[in-house]
Amino acid sequence: MPELLKRIAFEVAGNPDERTFTLSSGSNDGHYLSLRPLVKPRTPEGKEFPFEWAFAGTNKDITVTPIEGSENTVKQDFNFWIDINAYLNVPNTHRGVVNTVWTTWDSGCIKEAGEVFPFGKDKQAVPFIELWQPIDANKEDLVIVQESNKTLKSIVLKIDDSEYSGLVIVVGKWVQGILIKKSDGTKKGLNFMRLQEASNGSYKSLIEYGIDSSKFPKKFDSLEKDAVLSVAGLNWTVIEATY
Amino acid sequence: MPELLKRIAFEVAGNPDERTFTLSSGSNDGHYLSLRPLVKPRTPEGKEFPFEWAFAGTNKDITVTPIEGSENTVKQDFNFWIDINAYLNVPNTHRGVVNTVWTTWDSGCIKEAGEVFPFGKDKQAVPFIELWQPIDANKEDLVIVQESNKTLKSIVLKIDDSEYSGLVIVVGKWVQGILIKKSDGTKKGLNFMRLQEASNGSYKSLIEYGIDSSKFPKKFDSLEKDAVLSVAGLNWTVIEATY
Repeated sequence: MPELLKRIAFEVAGNPDERTFTLSSGSNDGHYLSLRPLVKPRTPEGKEFPFEWAFAGTNKDITVTPIEGSENTVKQDFNFWIDINAYLNVPNTHRGVVNTVWTTWDSGCIKEAGEVFPFGKDKQAVPFIELWQPIDANKEDLVIVQESNKTLKSIVLKIDDSEYSGLVIVVGKWVQGILIKKSDGTKKGLNFMRLQEASNGSYKSLIEYGIDSSKFPKKFDSLEKDAVLSVAGLNWTVIEATY
Repeated sequence: MPELLKRIAFEVAGNPDERTFTLSSGSNDGHYLSLRPLVKPRTPEGKEFPFEWAFAGTNKDITVTPIEGSENTVKQDFNFWIDINAYLNVPNTHRGVVNTVWTTWDSGCIKEAGEVFPFGKDKQAVPFIELWQPIDANKEDLVIVQESNKTLKSIVLKIDDSEYSGLVIVVGKWVQGILIKKSDGTKKGLNFMRLQEASNGSYKSLIEYGIDSSKFPKKFDSLEKDAVLSVAGLNWTVIEATY
């Protein structure tokens, strides 16, 4: 089921907080993308690069396993295809699979619990909790989901050529994208996009970051699976299209 | 500022969860009321009485103190006027003032941290955290507030006669009420109401509990402060009316 999740809290070492406006998009076929911009960057570094993190993957880059005997709990093992910490080689950040357990509460919110190994696989684990609020992706407001989702548009485009890796996920009225220039490895090689479809069908840009952000697809009408969409010289492949 | 807060998480002993659809109403003048119905009651007791808790107070029943040097933090000491645990004399529940600290995060959510003394003032303290999401009370959907609130209707009615204690708070399109029959002291003496104003001005009932629930006011047009509203024999006083 396509989903749009807003992170409500991020807890490490028993200290919950939320400094970002994080939305995670999950497509109908299980592709995923999370953009985590800071709400109020305070440091010079934060002002120059106002993102906590961003990552993306296809359904081949995640393993979802039901937990036997539990209706509300599922294991999700992420092996990010694009991880900007790995791309930037940020010191003391996790590499490789992240094992998590997701528990859906009676209220509809979802608790994600896991551990990362920022100092290496054989070093100290750091447990974390993230709390997610499902959002009605068919609405322009950030509406808390009260009943199970209606049918949602779910479209995914991917590029993976000699120069670029990128993923764009459309869920309902919300679009998110990450595009990285393979050879760069610095913040200059990063591009992010968050769009929102207005009632007249046009798209409003909420986040547009990076010198190659004009190379993101920004129209999503009548796309068919396996079609190739050319945008400013980049060839994006439609890997999922459900209207 | 009037506010409508949805509880997102309740954490005791490091174990966050949310089994209720809790909304707390805060009026412009600082009167407050919190209704905490269970979303999916499972036990026979929960099915018979599907509420975790409910309480209410006027601005005389709370002390709000800014914390010096902190922009985002405020102390709130609650001394509930109506507390259904006290009314029902539920064993191992707190009595008297509850001291809490409220921290507004960059994301707009608010963390409330405090301690209760369910086994008595001189016994073990139980620390708790509640996480609150401000909701746009002018909307019919549960819309996450992204910018500071616009003007909100804020109306409060109170009754405190020989038979009944009750408070009703209207914030924007959302109404909540508690009414207790003083002499009873059992669940039969409890009445709760949650209404939502539709776009045509009518009110939809979301919660209506208790044999005296017909005695709640359900129209809130053109009320003036200090006016008395008679409803099914009860005389409610308008203690606040801002349109």
